[in-house]
Amino acid sequence: MTNHEPLALTVLGLGEMGRALAAALLPAGHPTTVWNRSPGRADELIKAGAHAATTIGEAVGASPVVITCLYDHASVHDVLDPVTADLAGRTVINVTTTTPEQSRELAEWARTRGIDYLDGGIMAVPEMISKPGSLILYSGSAEVFDRTEPALRLWGDSRFLGADAGLAPLCDLAILTPMYTMFAGFLHGAAMAASAGVSASDLAAMAAPFLGAVAPSVHHFAEVVDGGDYAAPGQQSLEFSDLSDFVAASEAADVDPILINAVQTLIRRQVEAGHGKDGFSRIYQSLRRS
Amino acid sequence: MTNHEPLALTVLGLGEMGRALAAALLPAGHPTTVWNRSPGRADELIKAGAHAATTIGEAVGASPVVITCLYDHASVHDVLDPVTADLAGRTVINVTTTTPEQSRELAEWARTRGIDYLDGGIMAVPEMISKPGSLILYSGSAEVFDRTEPALRLWGDSRFLGADAGLAPLCDLAILTPMYTMFAGFLHGAAMAASAGVSASDLAAMAAPFLGAVAPSVHHFAEVVDGGDYAAPGQQSLEFSDLSDFVAASEAADVDPILINAVQTLIRRQVEAGHGKDGFSRIYQSLRRS
Repeated sequence: MTNHEPLALTVLGLGEMGRALAAALLPAGHPTTVWNRSPGRADELIKAGAHAATTIGEAVGASPVVITCLYDHASVHDVLDPVTADLAGRTVINVTTTTPEQSRELAEWARTRGIDYLDGGIMAVPEMISKPGSLILYSGSAEVFDRTEPALRLWGDSRFLGADAGLAPLCDLAILTPMYTMFAGFLHGAAMAASAGVSASDLAAMAAPFLGAVAPSVHHFAEVVDGGDYAAPGQQSLEFSDLSDFVAASEAADVDPILINAVQTLIRRQVEAGHGKDGFSRIYQSLRRS
Repeated sequence: MTNHEPLALTVLGLGEMGRALAAALLPAGHPTTVWNRSPGRADELIKAGAHAATTIGEAVGASPVVITCLYDHASVHDVLDPVTADLAGRTVINVTTTTPEQSRELAEWARTRGIDYLDGGIMAVPEMISKPGSLILYSGSAEVFDRTEPALRLWGDSRFLGADAGLAPLCDLAILTPMYTMFAGFLHGAAMAASAGVSASDLAAMAAPFLGAVAPSVHHFAEVVDGGDYAAPGQQSLEFSDLSDFVAASEAADVDPILINAVQTLIRRQVEAGHGKDGFSRIYQSLRRS
């Protein structure tokens, strides 16, 4: 095998994301083996040129690099533990969503068994794979990242964060947090709008472009947090950000204010500590315990 | 005065937003009078051609249409109540942030005093006024909206929602809710990332494009909510959306999980009611009390 032959990879786990990852490797000529615990998920991939392994042992033996895209941390162990001996000398790139601690545990598990390990956090939904906007964070073995990057970049923009395997899942969770809170906030807004007969779709038509337009504001909050001067000019003050109107309007619309109350609590802690004139980003201090 | 002469307007309140609104009217030739409770805010506007009134009575008397862009509902009354007689026969367009109930109160206050009333909710930060992405919602008098729309559209995309004056502020709050929860979620993520030495700015560089890319997903949630079939295919299930990993990783990073716990509570209510296989948008049902 020369350096010019595309790397062979195995993808374990053919949920929507696993199928998208495998599908992206094939057009680039990577010999791709796929496997799933339950059968019937590989049909489209076989048509596109993938080899479907019938056993996990066969799947692992087929490629020097094994991608795990499974349900959770426990399922990674369920699938890999029985084939530990086959994995020795090979590389595991685990893109299953896990906590930082779980990724560190897997990295150590791999190290003591002679398996090279890279952790990946996929910042994309399956439909976004290989398309603009797809970002995948990696941490763990820099050597693995450098060696496999030509394949990894087929999935999206690839970023290596450092040797601590927990870094990618930590940043993954840190970036998914505002996504989940935004989505939940939208459904809160939809419940408010419904009280006046405005449909969720009508609200989405107004909200989606607005949310896209304000998302880059996180850069400004970040600058203030990193700079540490919460009184820097040009910020919306915590006093002005008081969400009492939101809570009152939610109650009036029979909407549970639990979510907006959580933000209000973070704001009030700083206002009550005398920082009401400081910018909104000061709620960072309400969130940090140490 | 013919129909072809630009409408004269008065802007009361010269905070950042009020100044942006007045500044946008001048290049289009609208005779623009400005006034602020405390002096010294009008200098740039005077240079650009605005007339600065020295009393509120002069300000109101100068134009058939008076824009109020003040701190809150109470300050609208503080400013307008003393000049009620001068306002009779004129039009008030109130873009001050208020609750739906407060806007309805102002509409009724205006109606009984012979004042035409339109309520506006500005979905933009001051820098966005007159630029792409600026959206302003209106409700109340359709006649006022039709008559003033050529001026209103100078500030951004203008949308009239209906005769109930509370509609614009309701949709305003409904759209700002996911903005605030997203911003708070980002600061939560920044606190998590800091625990591993990742700066808020580095996190923002990864998070901002991602959040912009996922914002249009609110259309899909809205379709499911409006359709009422939370089991429709193609959705991420509530079970898979369980945020236990987020809570555990937040605790491990010494970050108060109050915000992510609020979303988790909304998810768990539905899972515990037996709807774990349904899509994430089902948390809408956790939010509605009636």
